[in-house]
Amino acid sequence: MQKIKDLILSEGTYLGNGILKVDSFINHQVDPIFMEECGREFARRFAGVKPTRILTAEISGIAPALMTARALKIPVVFARKSKPITMPDQVYLTVAPSHTKGVFVELIVSPEYLKHGERVLIIDDFLASGATINGLVRLTQAAGATLVGIGALIEKEFEDGRKQFTSLNVQIESLACITSMDNGKIVLRED
Amino acid sequence: MQKIKDLILSEGTYLGNGILKVDSFINHQVDPIFMEECGREFARRFAGVKPTRILTAEISGIAPALMTARALKIPVVFARKSKPITMPDQVYLTVAPSHTKGVFVELIVSPEYLKHGERVLIIDDFLASGATINGLVRLTQAAGATLVGIGALIEKEFEDGRKQFTSLNVQIESLACITSMDNGKIVLRED
Repeated sequence: MQKIKDLILSEGTYLGNGILKVDSFINHQVDPIFMEECGREFARRFAGVKPTRILTAEISGIAPALMTARALKIPVVFARKSKPITMPDQVYLTVAPSHTKGVFVELIVSPEYLKHGERVLIIDDFLASGATINGLVRLTQAAGATLVGIGALIEKEFEDGRKQFTSLNVQIESLACITSMDNGKIVLRED
Repeated sequence: MQKIKDLILSEGTYLGNGILKVDSFINHQVDPIFMEECGREFARRFAGVKPTRILTAEISGIAPALMTARALKIPVVFARKSKPITMPDQVYLTVAPSHTKGVFVELIVSPEYLKHGERVLIIDDFLASGATINGLVRLTQAAGATLVGIGALIEKEFEDGRKQFTSLNVQIESLACITSMDNGKIVLRED
């Protein structure tokens, strides 16, 4: 998707240690018109696998997931990283290492909103090491739901996260794919 | 707004201690079409004060804030509760007690995305004690921006949070106003 590639090159900043700062359009400030376009693009790519539900992880996954859900007219569920007191005692919980925080985080979904028979599309901001998305895959499996696709706004191809999902045999899409950030130069895959 | 009132009565659950569970449409699962309607309603009510930017707090504020930003075609900034490594060293930070978590949480905004001269509309899921929204007000003031309005999906009028904002002389709107939850019975204000 050309718009996101342009934004990565014009506003993204490489901070070292594999960290790409895209706070101005994804992680802290969001242009809703741009995010709506991303949602429509995911919807177009994944319409064929007939998802019935979007699953994402708080926090930065919420905006792209919500806009994809809007375009597909299906509900979105965001996995929580701490269990609110409104959740039932019995939940689906998994643990995933956080690349940007250097700690392990919990991902928690209530069985009320992720059920057997649902066709789940996972949408997140980044596909890097794949740790968070893998957590969402485990939650989907724990619920007995069917995973039908994985979408990320930005893929860091050089972190090789996609590889661990190939055995799942589901469609995997990223709207921009970074092949290298060596020497601070962001290199994007050509479509 | 009738739709949110209907949802509160049909899907909301009173858990005691002033806690209303609305996980099925706001805090864990979101119906994007409903949330888009909420965003359009906020946009309609606040168009007159000409906001240039929406400010919200992660996590549950993101969906209504994004949809309001979409309807107004302005950017949204979500205050972070922990400082990501992508943020600069110098930030605006305030501390607010969390009603549902029983702890104090930090609210952090980067000066990159909240500036002098902006006209800020604060959107959040709940206006209860007003503690979180008050934190967002302080961040707005710290940045030298102008607060032009405060909107919440649900107001718990009996917690009296609105009172502390009357001296600010800005428009305050909630899409549903709960006047009482005594004995577990949710009572909504008539329009």
